[in-house]
Amino acid sequence: SIDGDRLWDSLMEMAKIGKTAKDGVCRLALTDLDRESRDLFIKWCEAEGCSIRVDQMGNIFARREGKNPDLPPVVIGSHLDSQPTGGKYDGVYGVLSGLEVIRTLNEAKYETEAPIEVVSWTNEEGSRFAPAMVSSGVFAKVFDLEYGHGRADVDGKTMGEELKRIGYLGPDEPTIDAHPMGAYFEAHIEQGPILEDEGKDIGIVTDAQGQRWYEIKFTGVEAHAGPTPMKTRKDALLGAARVVDLVNKIGLDRSPLACATVGMMQIHPNSRNVIPGEVSFTVDFRHPDDAVLSDMDKALREGVEKIAKDIGLESELDNIFYYAPIPFDASCVDAVRKGAELGGFSAREIVSGAGHDACYLAQVCPTAMIFIPCVDGISHNEIEEVHKHWSDAGGQVLLTAVLAKADE
Amino acid sequence: SIDGDRLWDSLMEMAKIGKTAKDGVCRLALTDLDRESRDLFIKWCEAEGCSIRVDQMGNIFARREGKNPDLPPVVIGSHLDSQPTGGKYDGVYGVLSGLEVIRTLNEAKYETEAPIEVVSWTNEEGSRFAPAMVSSGVFAKVFDLEYGHGRADVDGKTMGEELKRIGYLGPDEPTIDAHPMGAYFEAHIEQGPILEDEGKDIGIVTDAQGQRWYEIKFTGVEAHAGPTPMKTRKDALLGAARVVDLVNKIGLDRSPLACATVGMMQIHPNSRNVIPGEVSFTVDFRHPDDAVLSDMDKALREGVEKIAKDIGLESELDNIFYYAPIPFDASCVDAVRKGAELGGFSAREIVSGAGHDACYLAQVCPTAMIFIPCVDGISHNEIEEVHKHWSDAGGQVLLTAVLAKADE
Ligand SMILES: NC(=O)NCCC(=O)O
Ligand SMILES: NC(=O)NCCC(=O)O
Repeated sequence: SIDGDRLWDSLMEMAKIGKTAKDGVCRLALTDLDRESRDLFIKWCEAEGCSIRVDQMGNIFARREGKNPDLPPVVIGSHLDSQPTGGKYDGVYGVLSGLEVIRTLNEAKYETEAPIEVVSWTNEEGSRFAPAMVSSGVFAKVFDLEYGHGRADVDGKTMGEELKRIGYLGPDEPTIDAHPMGAYFEAHIEQGPILEDEGKDIGIVTDAQGQRWYEIKFTGVEAHAGPTPMKTRKDALLGAARVVDLVNKIGLDRSPLACATVGMMQIHPNSRNVIPGEVSFTVDFRHPDDAVLSDMDKALREGVEKIAKDIGLESELDNIFYYAPIPFDASCVDAVRKGAELGGFSAREIVSGAGHDACYLAQVCPTAMIFIPCVDGISHNEIEEVHKHWSDAGGQVLLTAVLAKADE
Repeated sequence: SIDGDRLWDSLMEMAKIGKTAKDGVCRLALTDLDRESRDLFIKWCEAEGCSIRVDQMGNIFARREGKNPDLPPVVIGSHLDSQPTGGKYDGVYGVLSGLEVIRTLNEAKYETEAPIEVVSWTNEEGSRFAPAMVSSGVFAKVFDLEYGHGRADVDGKTMGEELKRIGYLGPDEPTIDAHPMGAYFEAHIEQGPILEDEGKDIGIVTDAQGQRWYEIKFTGVEAHAGPTPMKTRKDALLGAARVVDLVNKIGLDRSPLACATVGMMQIHPNSRNVIPGEVSFTVDFRHPDDAVLSDMDKALREGVEKIAKDIGLESELDNIFYYAPIPFDASCVDAVRKGAELGGFSAREIVSGAGHDACYLAQVCPTAMIFIPCVDGISHNEIEEVHKHWSDAGGQVLLTAVLAKADE
């Protein structure tokens, strides 16, 4: 059995790095705080006798050897970076429950057949550097290294530069080819309300939704808010506002499965008495059915074109990120289901609404995920909360599932 | 006659301070660039033998004595600060055409009865520090000194601190009581399309529109853009977007006289995959009829309440700035009309769509304004442009009007 208190203490210890006023976490990818969390994770892993490997995307692998060195490792992981106003569990729970599996095996002096590795992936959130899950994407060969290093934040700083700056530009080739895996497991908070609403402690994740991310820019004409007649205006913010409403409608019309969000907007020149001349914003679409996702894409493109035409704006629309819905590996999902049964936890099958590193890993090795509930389904928020018995349950199911695969 | 070339050269010289890539100007109030423009203005005025006075709001007065030291001065002025992406003429034209009047009188060795002063008012734009025209407002006793010094920019720096920092916190009492004025004239670009459309070189400004400025804040719940069902969301940006559309409709419904603009918006946390939890934005309403302005106010308040209720947001609405429509002084307006006639310029009466320092001065002394056209009516934009013959005409009319009042 895992030690739930030890896992919880580690979560709370890690949450001190980048702690915010409202008891959340701000630990954006590749900042100094991200470096601190990496250093602490490595310190803990080394204390457990693990060997450490850092690759060219800054992904960190901590390895516990198995009886049979020829077997590819069973890998457990997630990410340590957070949203600007993020919580204590998103990502961190998956990394530290992996560490807890190793601590438990060490304490029990249990030797697995295959080696076990815990991985922390770089820049999962996609908040400082878009898109999300860049480094597990490079690992799964969805992106190449150049693309990964080239992702830039709003100040133009790239992931390559920032990896170097914080000392985590490792030497290792960052792809599955260099590091085959026997299986990949990721434990994570649900980030939605379903498990808690139904009183389940464990979500057996069968699939992940597809996603499309967009960047849209409207260009109108900056002019004085006072003497510029309404009829001659080309107000870029008016266009953006109408797209926000449209995006909401696109999501609602395909509810409950669809999600559609404008999360980010930059207004230029952003002055009270100037009609905005340029507005850039993002759109995030999700759906478990790829055909519906395409239909949402079509509705957005048509709507943006019409709105721009009505107001007399120029528009640019860029679909910067797409992945199709992904089913997880049947045998890994089964290992999770058995783990829940064995532990006597209430569980249900569930589709992931969020993207996870596991979604990319699923394209190159047998993968599954374990969800635990979070209070009110809220995450990407400083008030993100988890009850300790959920954390205990997830760690225990993870241990059972990993052992089933490592000793197969 | 004024020297149109000399005025033009001074405009171009001043435009070098804070010049932007697109040949506009970024010279926000009380920045180092603002200081540079003040230093240059004072240098030019001192070269003309003027005495300089700086008051506690950083307003700069350059004085040319008249024959009769007991008469209050006729004052000419405007402002040297600009929008973040502003043009070369907005404000500067009024200050430097005032200087050109003094240069012309010096050259002609002409002595007026009353003294003449040129003034540059601090922070007219209201862009870095809201509201607009703060320091002419203090001068006209609409605001007190504490309010003026307390205006803060987005970083929390106050006008009082910044005046001190750039060395323009003068000793003089900044009110009309300490410095009675015989009359106040302000020459300015129209910032709208009417004069150019009708082929007029001069606008005889009879009134200024009323204005209401608002700050609105919506608070919803930040949550993950992926697994948070559309129906349970409290999306603050969706609320703000609907208000942008509403504000536009409020303006359009009362067109052509009404103007209604959302110019500025801050989104929190502004991350692609987070439903915005908090959005703050501004509204700018204008109308020449105060009753219509009140009606617009009512429509906004009702709309904001309804939109907030529909989405489940908390809302705060603050009307941070209001002034009623203002008629200018009949005799000063007449002096402008006569000036245009005397110069043989095509002219028409016009209502100012923008707020100007003259609007506050009009509350405490006889005041009028002279408009010249600007290309396509565009200002608050780097591409703001003026034809030189318009600039010549405005300067000439200003000279005639000022002399009429100074020798009355
Ligand atoms: N789990 C998570 O928050 N991932 C970030 C990428 C996404 O927005 O789905
Ligand atoms: N003239 C001018 O741009 N004034 C700024 C205040 C306003 O927005 O009317």
